[in-house]
Amino acid sequence: MLDQVKALTFDVFGTVVDWRGSITREGEALARTKNIHGVDWAKFAEAWRALYQPMMQEVRSGRRPWTKLDDLHRMNLDRVLRDFSITGLSEPEIDHLNHVWHRLDPWPDVVAGLTRLKRKYILATLSNGNVALMVNMAKRAGLPWDVILGAEIARAYKPQPEAYLRSAEFLGLRPDECMMVAAHNSDHEAANALGFHNAFVPRPTEYGPGQTKDVTPSRAWDVVAKDFGELADRLGC
Amino acid sequence: MLDQVKALTFDVFGTVVDWRGSITREGEALARTKNIHGVDWAKFAEAWRALYQPMMQEVRSGRRPWTKLDDLHRMNLDRVLRDFSITGLSEPEIDHLNHVWHRLDPWPDVVAGLTRLKRKYILATLSNGNVALMVNMAKRAGLPWDVILGAEIARAYKPQPEAYLRSAEFLGLRPDECMMVAAHNSDHEAANALGFHNAFVPRPTEYGPGQTKDVTPSRAWDVVAKDFGELADRLGC
Repeated sequence: MLDQVKALTFDVFGTVVDWRGSITREGEALARTKNIHGVDWAKFAEAWRALYQPMMQEVRSGRRPWTKLDDLHRMNLDRVLRDFSITGLSEPEIDHLNHVWHRLDPWPDVVAGLTRLKRKYILATLSNGNVALMVNMAKRAGLPWDVILGAEIARAYKPQPEAYLRSAEFLGLRPDECMMVAAHNSDHEAANALGFHNAFVPRPTEYGPGQTKDVTPSRAWDVVAKDFGELADRLGC
Repeated sequence: MLDQVKALTFDVFGTVVDWRGSITREGEALARTKNIHGVDWAKFAEAWRALYQPMMQEVRSGRRPWTKLDDLHRMNLDRVLRDFSITGLSEPEIDHLNHVWHRLDPWPDVVAGLTRLKRKYILATLSNGNVALMVNMAKRAGLPWDVILGAEIARAYKPQPEAYLRSAEFLGLRPDECMMVAAHNSDHEAANALGFHNAFVPRPTEYGPGQTKDVTPSRAWDVVAKDFGELADRLGC
């Protein structure tokens, strides 16, 4: 059944890259440079991320016209900076901080795992991140994608069906020729309902040491692997 | 002035890959397998390619709704098979032949040149080929693109401005942060009018030994290089 899979389509934030750790590190470095005191940057990262789904929901619902993720991130950042009473950043500094999402670090197993998987499969991003974000992240981190697909190309945010279906369509593949790779059960539920195969790679510290969500599969997904190395093993790469 | 260039955007058919030679070789192999006699496969390739611009013009003009290149190629193939009186191919065989565009071979300098250029620049396709065609070609030939852009993503065929402008926009770049790499002066004229920089890499045998068009630059383009190795030299890669 998995023999028909030709492309692996990847969730990125959380699955491929460690947004919480990366933003925490960059925030702490910024705080030292700019003499910002008393900010818990892990909490800052979590607060910024917490506004992600509600803001995309504005677009999904049609209340807001299509807006790329960089711009949603910026509106959310302005709010989080206010909530954490962080002042004294210039416009270029805020803009640079907003682009931290282009500079997220991958989990340690990612580059080696993707390099193995790429020999056998088309590797596509199927993320809500916009194209420039995905391209800049990949250049910096050495992520060997074959193609950048997902929300901006489809003009629909996951879990809307169009995000998955249009990505498969751009590859000239049926959904059952694609396998979603993601650390989030909700992403798998949405993709599976459309016919995608599913490889669940939990990232149990994505939200920090106390994480309880998405540490185990919600259903018997086709593959469950602890990291991209084990995924490559399981897929015979 | 070229210091601001962050992405190289590539024309593909003719500039990166040798469509005429590749189709000729595959046609000749097919003829041996299927006992097809008396076909000049270089002429066949040229005839198929000659229908390319008129068919895209149907889409550009709005007379035909958006249609991806694989499907335009197929309509043209059906006609060329009739014109060359080639019969006896099954539907799967015709479909396979239509996908020869996914299996075109690069010019000998391409893979090494792109590998050098990739260290310094974002490498994007900006072709009229559809995404699946570009991805399959790249996997087979080892073309190290960072991102697949161009006509299907923009839903506009070059030289329509949207094909170039939307590709730059997806990268989050201004046109003058992009450099078009192409073997065709007309592609450079269109991109240059929008603010792109231009690297002309002539492919003087794209149309065979008697080629007279596009063997020299029509204007003083920013860079003129004989192949992708010289282009990498000129751009300090």
